[in-house]
This record gives sequence, structure tokens and C-alpha cells, in this order.
Amino acid sequence: MLVVGENISVVSKVVGDAIRDRNAAPIIEMAKKQKEAGADYVDVNIGPATKKGEELMQWIVKSIQAEVDVPLALDTKNINAMEAGLEVHKGTAMINSVTGDKDKLDILMPLAKKYNSKIVGIALTEKGVPPDVDSRVEIIIVLPVAVLQEQVFNSIKALKVFKELKELMALPDDPRTIVGLSNVSQSSPPELKSLLNRTYLLILLSQGLDSAIVDPLDRELMNAVKTYNILTNKILYAHSYLD
Amino acid sequence: MLVVGENISVVSKVVGDAIRDRNAAPIIEMAKKQKEAGADYVDVNIGPATKKGEELMQWIVKSIQAEVDVPLALDTKNINAMEAGLEVHKGTAMINSVTGDKDKLDILMPLAKKYNSKIVGIALTEKGVPPDVDSRVEIIIVLPVAVLQEQVFNSIKALKVFKELKELMALPDDPRTIVGLSNVSQSSPPELKSLLNRTYLLILLSQGLDSAIVDPLDRELMNAVKTYNILTNKILYAHSYLD
Repeated sequence: MLVVGENISVVSKVVGDAIRDRNAAPIIEMAKKQKEAGADYVDVNIGPATKKGEELMQWIVKSIQAEVDVPLALDTKNINAMEAGLEVHKGTAMINSVTGDKDKLDILMPLAKKYNSKIVGIALTEKGVPPDVDSRVEIIIVLPVAVLQEQVFNSIKALKVFKELKELMALPDDPRTIVGLSNVSQSSPPELKSLLNRTYLLILLSQGLDSAIVDPLDRELMNAVKTYNILTNKILYAHSYLD
Repeated sequence: MLVVGENISVVSKVVGDAIRDRNAAPIIEMAKKQKEAGADYVDVNIGPATKKGEELMQWIVKSIQAEVDVPLALDTKNINAMEAGLEVHKGTAMINSVTGDKDKLDILMPLAKKYNSKIVGIALTEKGVPPDVDSRVEIIIVLPVAVLQEQVFNSIKALKVFKELKELMALPDDPRTIVGLSNVSQSSPPELKSLLNRTYLLILLSQGLDSAIVDPLDRELMNAVKTYNILTNKILYAHSYLD
């Protein structure tokens, strides 16, 4: 499973302040901690970024990658800021555009191709799954179980169908799937969130999920992932496998 | 998921002593606690029971069911003791004969029919799955991940195949599946056991497992099962669903 760390987001006060002051240290620290905890990608959500978005995205990408050797998932609705970030990103970036807006996808898909980046897109367009970007990633929308319980179960079933698309549509590769995991526990009490998140993750992994946007500092969640990898023979068992 | 509580076993010192002294109180207490914790069945393992097996099984079944309203899974290699237990059991018993020995199955299957009990049997006989006992349960052998990691993964795959047997063999009903869960963490350090057990259980439930022999007093395991039931829309979500 590809782990995308979700913690660097403009909605957090620490990150918001750091961005306003162009103070990179707290952001770099968050990237470092997430990587150490097992994140394969670190998500960088700068929000709408209507003002100075391009400069901001380049600053944050360069600041993190100067100190931490980790690829980033770039998350903004500002398409110019997105391209500015891709220009300076080292390694394979991920365009984390969680939007079903076809007009935006028509711009972002060629960008993904140009910069050879992964791209997160909503399910299907009218044209079907465009097979021209190798590392295209499909998102399954996760909804809060406290509000829309039946939809949570439907997402599990949808995931199974997605994994059958390769055969149905003669795709060159499996469509990859990703979820924004913590949505499932939105509106649930704090003491239930981690349990709901990690249980849902195990169910989805059992149905073939490829990646998830998670809090990699949630130790019980990461231990559940490691244990899943042991039990499905993906990594070799050792008594010390959690260390 | 049908929960079978595993705690009343002659291999435990408390149970061994209680059986020797015909002191029912500790055994009744264990049955009560397991039922309260969510066990649908309580397993009663009296071992080989070569001496006075029939009297012993009847004593233990009657002692428990006089105080606790719970059906029992009877577990012994002594076939006469098994039938003696079935004779006095109230409700639908389960014959927990975890053996591939065909001669014994040929005796136990008719017993299951006579007493209308569930029966746990190893996978397939040469004749295929006998369709004449409605509530027949198939066991998937679980092996320790610390010793036979690849077999643990194979059990997950075998479970999927079992669930397809209904169609393949035109059975009147799905073959039911059960695992003795704690085998998976045998030989692993104590601090890993619960994590391995509950993670494996969630993977197996995601593949269609029907029941498991577990320690229902393992609160994290039972919470994982409840959360699974919430996320797969089997029980209605409430903020208090763990209580």
C-alpha cells in the first residue's frame, strides 16, 4: 500500500501560520516525521491559494525537498500553482486534484503527462478511463459513516468493481485506487476515529485498495498496515516487524 | 459473524482443576463472561476424556446451561462423550470436531443430523461437501504466521474459493466457514498476539468468513468486529456502538 501523509494542510493552524510567515521549519518537521513514520508521499495542501499561489507552491515544494527526500502530493485548486509546483518538484509528484470537474481534468491530465506525475482523479469521465498516463490513480469517495453509513459500504463494493475494470475495458494496467481515509470518521467522536479509520482501511485493502491518504503518525493505523502486509505475505515475518 | 468463545479448555489450569474437582463455579463464570462479551457459542473443550468422558461431558453441559442461556460447541475426541453431551444439550449444539479423520466424520455427521446440531469439519471429503446437514460448517485451518507465513496467506485465498463452492457444486446453501483464530499468533510474542488475531480476522471477514473461535474477552478484537459490522452496514451506526 502506498501511504500518502495528510498532515500538511493549510486548514491546520500551525501550517496556516507557517505559510503566512513563510516560516518553513514547522512544515519541514512535519514532512520529516511523516516520512519517518512510513509515508511514501507527503501531501501538501495549500488550499485555493488565489493570491501568490505559484510562488507559494514553489516555496513549499523547494523548502521540503531541500531537507527531506520524499515525493509530494500537490493539493490546490489553483491550476497555475499546481504547474508551478510540478516545475520545481524532484522525483515523481502526485497531482492530488480531488475534483470531478471535467474542465479541470482536461488541463490537469496533460500536465500529469508533461511532468510524468501521478494524478488522482474522480472515478470515470464520459470517455472512460484515459489509458495514456501510466500511473493514473482513481479515487473512491469516502463519506462519513456517522452520516451516510450505507454509502460507506457502497464504497467497498465500488472498489471491487474498479479492480475489475482492467478486464472489462481492456486497459493496459489495473486502475489504481486511493481513498482519503479520515473522511469515514468525520462527525464521529474523537475516541472512535482511529478505530474506524484503521478498520475501514483493512477492509478496503482486503478488496484491493492500492493507496490511502492517512495520518502516518497514527501508530495503530500504521501497525495495522504492517500486520496486513505480514498476513498477506508481502513482507517477511519477524517478531520485531513493528519496530 | 458467529462468535465462538474459546476460553473453556481443559488445557487451562483453572478449567483443569475445576473439572478434576467437579467444581462448576469457575466454568460457569467463564461461560457467563464470554456470553456477556458477545459470544454466540461457548466452546467446551474437555480434551481426549478417555476416563468417564460421558459423565464429564454431561456434567459440564448441564452445569453451564443451568446458569447461562448459551449454546455450546462441544469439543472432544471421545465420540461417546460427544453423543452424551448432545443428548443433554439445550438448543442447537455445535460439534467442534477439528479433525480430518474420515472414519470419525462418518460417525459424527449422522450424530449432527440426529441432534440437529451444527458440525465443524475439515474442508472436503472425497465425496465433496455433503449437503444433507443444513448447518454444516467448514473449517479453514489456520497456521502460525511466525512459522508458516505463506500458509496464512493461502488460507485467505482458500476461503475465497470455499465461498464459490455453492455455485461450482450446486449446493443448496453456501458452505459456512469457521477459523480457530488464535492459531495465527501462536509462537508470536504476547504483545503481538491480539494485533495479529484481530487483523487476520478483519481480512478473513472481508473475504466472507462466517464465524471464528476467539477469545471474546479480547476487547480490541470484539471492538474490531463491531466496527466491521458498522462499516459493512450490518448494524446501525450510533456514536455509542462500542458500548
